[in-house]
Order: sequence, then structure tokens, then C-alpha cells
Amino acid sequence: MAIGIGLLGLGTVGSGVAAILASPQGRHPLVADLVLERVAVRDLSRPRPLTLPPERLTTDPEAVIDDPAVDIVVEVMGGLEPARSLILRAIAAGKPVVTANKAVIARYGQEIAAAATERGVYVLIEAAVGGGIPIIEPIKQSLGGNRIRRVSGIINGTTNYILSRMADEGAAYAEVLADAQRLGYAEADPAADVEGGDAADKIAILAGLAYGGPVERGGIATEGIDRLDARDVAYAAQLGFVVKLLAVAERVEDVADAPDRHLSEPPGGVALDVRVHPTLLPKHHPLAGVHGVNNAILVEGDPVGQVMFFGPGAGAGPTASAVVADILNIAGIRQVGGPQAGLDPLLAASSWRHCALVDGSRTHHRNYVRLRTRDEAGVIGRIGTCFGAAQVSIQSIVQLDAREGEAEIVVITHEVREDRFREALGAIEALEGVEAVAACLRTL
Amino acid sequence: MAIGIGLLGLGTVGSGVAAILASPQGRHPLVADLVLERVAVRDLSRPRPLTLPPERLTTDPEAVIDDPAVDIVVEVMGGLEPARSLILRAIAAGKPVVTANKAVIARYGQEIAAAATERGVYVLIEAAVGGGIPIIEPIKQSLGGNRIRRVSGIINGTTNYILSRMADEGAAYAEVLADAQRLGYAEADPAADVEGGDAADKIAILAGLAYGGPVERGGIATEGIDRLDARDVAYAAQLGFVVKLLAVAERVEDVADAPDRHLSEPPGGVALDVRVHPTLLPKHHPLAGVHGVNNAILVEGDPVGQVMFFGPGAGAGPTASAVVADILNIAGIRQVGGPQAGLDPLLAASSWRHCALVDGSRTHHRNYVRLRTRDEAGVIGRIGTCFGAAQVSIQSIVQLDAREGEAEIVVITHEVREDRFREALGAIEALEGVEAVAACLRTL
Repeated sequence: MAIGIGLLGLGTVGSGVAAILASPQGRHPLVADLVLERVAVRDLSRPRPLTLPPERLTTDPEAVIDDPAVDIVVEVMGGLEPARSLILRAIAAGKPVVTANKAVIARYGQEIAAAATERGVYVLIEAAVGGGIPIIEPIKQSLGGNRIRRVSGIINGTTNYILSRMADEGAAYAEVLADAQRLGYAEADPAADVEGGDAADKIAILAGLAYGGPVERGGIATEGIDRLDARDVAYAAQLGFVVKLLAVAERVEDVADAPDRHLSEPPGGVALDVRVHPTLLPKHHPLAGVHGVNNAILVEGDPVGQVMFFGPGAGAGPTASAVVADILNIAGIRQVGGPQAGLDPLLAASSWRHCALVDGSRTHHRNYVRLRTRDEAGVIGRIGTCFGAAQVSIQSIVQLDAREGEAEIVVITHEVREDRFREALGAIEALEGVEAVAACLRTL
Repeated sequence: MAIGIGLLGLGTVGSGVAAILASPQGRHPLVADLVLERVAVRDLSRPRPLTLPPERLTTDPEAVIDDPAVDIVVEVMGGLEPARSLILRAIAAGKPVVTANKAVIARYGQEIAAAATERGVYVLIEAAVGGGIPIIEPIKQSLGGNRIRRVSGIINGTTNYILSRMADEGAAYAEVLADAQRLGYAEADPAADVEGGDAADKIAILAGLAYGGPVERGGIATEGIDRLDARDVAYAAQLGFVVKLLAVAERVEDVADAPDRHLSEPPGGVALDVRVHPTLLPKHHPLAGVHGVNNAILVEGDPVGQVMFFGPGAGAGPTASAVVADILNIAGIRQVGGPQAGLDPLLAASSWRHCALVDGSRTHHRNYVRLRTRDEAGVIGRIGTCFGAAQVSIQSIVQLDAREGEAEIVVITHEVREDRFREALGAIEALEGVEAVAACLRTL
């Protein structure tokens, strides 16, 4: 039974999807049922690697949605508008939507989900996070028996490529970024990647699915790699760590020393610490071995323990694989019931509890701090005393470099409360002999 | 809406499932709809960590299946019979089945699938491979747009534990096995694990799903780790490799030098090379970093590239997580259609093409060979000549040890056809100065 596909966008991902649909042989037999009915493009005259009958191409995306031959709308144009409005228009027309648009879903996911639930259609988003890695559907469909403790991931390929090269070559950030731009691994305007916004979009989506309720995108503490010093990458390596841009969503438990209402779960809900920042990972951590433009997501839950999903985080082929997976899921479930059929609650992933972001000052983390000091006796002792006074317990404190009367001291703390750690840093900055807090990173 | 669960078996996995159902808070809200109606156990008097009302326990598994309050039958008793008959009985009663029983599925999967298709019920098996790792459903539901090239995995935790310790400690196989048995990581009768049968069961299942048709379990070439010498683990490490028990299912393409009918695809089908054997992996291969009782499965396809799934391969909690995922999928899809609903072809995973195992002698592999020779000039040259005469091209040939007139020579070949490689080995065994082919392993 033929299923009409309407494609909004024929860029890298759209062309990848069209290529799969055009060559079903050797793939799941349902692929052969998918017919590319209409495609919205920006410029009809542009030459394309795929030959499509000219009457299937249009510059009017609404015509694609409204075409009665189109059963499923696939949005791969990117950007916030008109993508958001087009997705809502498709939903209003009762047509299921597949989208790779993490920016729209991270910002308007709640509005879109509400419209989809009301109209009884699916909006599937496997391609929005982790490129070709099956991660959205496994979280929705394969881990529901668990209480999720933490979702952490390397979910931005550009920054992981840059960090991998900084670690391998000891190169500076700006230098590797310029090279990545030349090679096409980074955009001309790299802000969304290197400042962590793209990873924040994605962890908002993953957390919303893993914990069952929308996560406020604007509340995610986000730090990129754009101010990362090659020196800290090298020191981390000396101490047995690898620096990665990690996106983390963690369920916050009440802890013994802070029986605080900020930390307890909202009624019927869950309290989360969601953040993006460069992070020191121990060399044997499962995520430490993820190199180059690959992505990986580690999900920790009870009783499953740790499961990890690894693969190519971007690219036409991998992303198209994820888009087609979503199309197939919709095509498959259409065979279950007629037009009056209900929604599968796992595939529809409607939210079922409130997710509240906790006040960052009450969260607990391990930290890496690099201090620039005068090279003189007693400085390490004074620093240690300051941390101790703020109840910040220290794992190691090492002088790693000294020249011309200056020294560099690196401190790694145990897991400590953020406000106490900041208090200690304030006191240390004012110390005799301490010239600057030169860097401050998280440690896992 | 309450959904009645009938559990066949209350061992490690069954107790794990019951524990999840007994504490739904914080898990997906569908878990709260699952009611453990009846449980079949072997011995009513045995003390159990869970308190269940006595009237829910029975020693008669058929009574569980026949109980009208039971909507989904969960088979976690293990073994071939009566498990197979009970699964068929549940299907005949129109009840969907969730099973963790890889032995039954690998041997009777075709019979069970045929019965399930005819009766229109699901038989889900996420827990049968890879413990808590979502792998079965991602292959079924998230990779259908791909042409799968290869599925390879570390899918037996016991042998991976033994190999990890052999590599870390330089210990002998028998010694580590005895220790693993003491620690409960290996069974008193370890044959199914260490001889590769368990991994063969699992790769048969994975290949059947990835390639869309049943794979003949009896035709899988299987070699375990029970004859592996610690010396080869050490030599492999010196050469930059890690030894793992790998299960591999690979699509065989026609190759230029062998336009052979054995290698071409059967009409409407696919030709596969499916095997289990100790394998040398390059140290940076994604599977090389999988240690201890963890499992990982690497799926390679077009256009997705490489995706890997990693996690705990066994244990009560992880396996129960997978079983509950299956139950939730069935519960979720029940909400789509009424009793007359059709099957979702992705979730049902009915087979859609013929999978034929190819003649092993025509397959292509890289090999590791250890030869025991006399320590004299000219031996390496004669060995090299023999390989060359059989058109076996060599990547490296190294003398790694020499004492008391004896030497050990390790050869790593390029990818070569198996029959030519065997021909070369035969000639080498007969060589002047060669005492024995002491070990022969695959290399990736």
C-alpha cells in the first residue's frame, strides 16, 4: 500500500532521504511502499544529484502539506520559521510529521506536542539528536521500565572534532577551529556549535523524553569550548583525563547535607540538573573513547545500569537513516488500526510529569581549577586551607608548571556543592600569592 | 487500564521483572497499569525476596497461560522444553509473548514466528540478546532504511570476562575460568558459554532480524575460547590487537576474484557469512574497549555507517529492564487498535527474504597464525614463499620468541579466501623446519 511522502527541504538531509526512497532494494520492504509525492525547495533551477519529475518540485511548502497525496510530512529545512508553522500546519491537517529540527523541537516542542496530541498524530524526531544513532526511540520504547538517573552525551560532532584534535596535536582552539571550517566540519558562523547551544537544544530534547516532561530550554546552564585553553587539555591528559563537551541531564536526589526544598522533587514531578560544559572524563570512562565527529549518549538508570549508544552524529547518510526510520515507524503503525485508531503512548511520547530545573548553586559537582600563582613556598597550603574552610574536599592539588617566578597549580575537588565551591574560589582569588583563577572546568 | 501479566519462572530474571512491576513510581506511567496476575514457579515452598499473595503462585505453567486475567505471557524459565511448548500454547490462546529465551528462539524461532503471524500476536525478545542493551528493537524499528553490511558483537559476558582477565593478568584460560566459576560469572558447566554456542544462538537471532529472514542455527561455524592459549593473547597485544570472542553476521558480496555462484545472493535473498570465533581486534576498534561482563553490538549499514550499542550483557536488573520494555511495547500498541487490529510489521518483524549461509571455504578473512619452528635461518623465507604460492598475501611475519633451538613465528595475513589460506597452511605444516601450526585465529 503506497504511502505518500512530502518533503520540506532538499538539502543534505533531504537529498539523503530521497536517495533511500529511490533505491528500496535490500532495505526493509516497507521502504518500497514509500512514494516521494512532493518536495518543497528554495530554488527550482538549482541542479540536483537526484532527478525528480519537475511537477513534484515546488517552492511552496504549504502546497506540499496540503497535497492530498501526501500522507506523511518530512521537515528537513531547518531553522525556526517557517519550520515551526509548517509543522503545526501539517498537524492541523491530521498528517504525521517527521522532523530533524532540534532547534524547533527544543524551543516549541511543548506547543507542537500539544497540537499533535489533540489532533491524534505522531511527530517523530529521531534525527534531531545524534544523527544516525538510534537514541530517541530507544529512550521512548526500550527504557520505560527504568528510573533514569542520568543522561549524558557527546552530542555535538563539531566540538568533539575540535577537542579530539586539540588533545591529539596539542593545538590551540582557534587554530583547529579555522581548520575545521576549511574542511567543512564547522560552519562559517560556528557559534551554535562551539558555544554549546546546539548541544543544549539536544539535551533538552533527550531529558524531556527520558524524564517524561518538557525541560525549559532557556534554563539550561550552557558553556561552550570557545574559551577553552589548550593548556587545560594538556594538563587534563597528564592527570589521566580527556576533555569533552558534555551535555548532562541528571536527576537530583535529596542529599544528606542539603535537605533543601530546591532539591526535592516537585509534587508529581522530578528535579533535574541539566547543563552543557567542557568536562574532564577519566580516560576509561565509556564516553572518553568517542573521537572525531562521532556522538555517543550514555543512559544510566535503575535497574538497567549503564547503556551507551554510539555512532555518526551528523552527515547526510546517517541523518537520512534516522528520518527514514521515523517514516517507517509511522507507516508500520498505520497498519495496526484504521483512521480512528488511538496513539501508541510510547511512540507518541506524551509527557507524564513535571520536570523542574534546580537552582544551580545547590547542585553537586567535581571541579578542575587552574590557578596562576607566584612560585613561592606556602601557596599550596593557603589554597588548601581556603577550600577546607568552605567544606570543599579536595582529591588532588598539583603544581604543574613553574617559570620566571610564576607557577600553575591545578586542583581537582571531590563532589562538592556549587555554592560552597564558588565561595572557596572567591576567597582563593583574594589570597596573597594567587594571581588568577585561570580556568575552571567540571570533572566527572 | 489494567493489563494482566503472567510470569513463567521466578528465578533471577523473573524476580527482577516482578520487582519493577511492584514499584512503578518514577518509571513510565504504563508500568503502573501492569498487574502481575499469576506466576509459575518450580517449588512453592522456596523463600523469595518478593512477597506475592500465595494464590498468585502455581507450579502449573499452563494454568498461568490459560488464566483469563493474563493478557501477556512472559517466559523467563529458560531451557528448550517446556518453554517452546508453553510459548506456542500462549500464541494459540491469542496471547502475546515476551521471552528472554535465546536458545528457544535461535532453534524454534521460525516455528514460533509462523504461529504468531497466523494468530496475529507479537512475540518480543529484547532480553534474548545483550541483556539490558536495547538492540533487538533498534534493529527492528530504527535501521530499516539501511542495507546492513555487517552485525558484529561481543554478546557473551562470561567469555568477555575471561578474555579481559587473560589480557590484563596474562593468566591462563583454565585458571581464569575456575576463578570465574567461583565468582558466579561462569556456570558449573561452562560449555554453552566458552564453546561459543550461546553467542551462536544470539548472532542467529540478530542476523535473522537484521537481514530479514531466519538463519540456520546449525550452519553457524562456531569456535569458542576453550582452546585459546594465553600466549596468543599476549602476542596479539604486542602486535596492537585485543582478543575478543566475536559473533559476526556479514553480507557476502560478489568479489572480483571469485564470481562464484556460492557467493552470489539467492534469488530474492541474501548470502551471509555467520560465525563465532576468537578474533584479534585492532586496539582502537570500537569493540576493543568492551571489558568484563559488558556486551556491545556494532551494526554497519548503508547509509548509516557504524552504530554501536553497549551495556550490561546479563544480570537480573538489566535483563528485567529489557523484558519490561517488551511488555510496555505490547501494552502501548494495544491502545492503538481494538481486538481486530493488525500487526505493526516492524514490531512483529516477520521475515521478508531468504537468508542463505555461504560455503565457508569461499569466504574472505584476515588471519593470525602462530607457528612453532626450529630456530634456524631460512624458515621465515620458506613460510612466506608458501603463502605466496597460494596467493595469500601477508601483512606481517614476525619471530616473537626463540629458545633452545625453537622459535615462534606469528603471521598476520591480509583478507584472503579461506580455501587458499587452508591450502597454504597445509603446505606450511609439511615444511622443513616447521614443527606445528600452534594457533590459528581470525583478525578483523
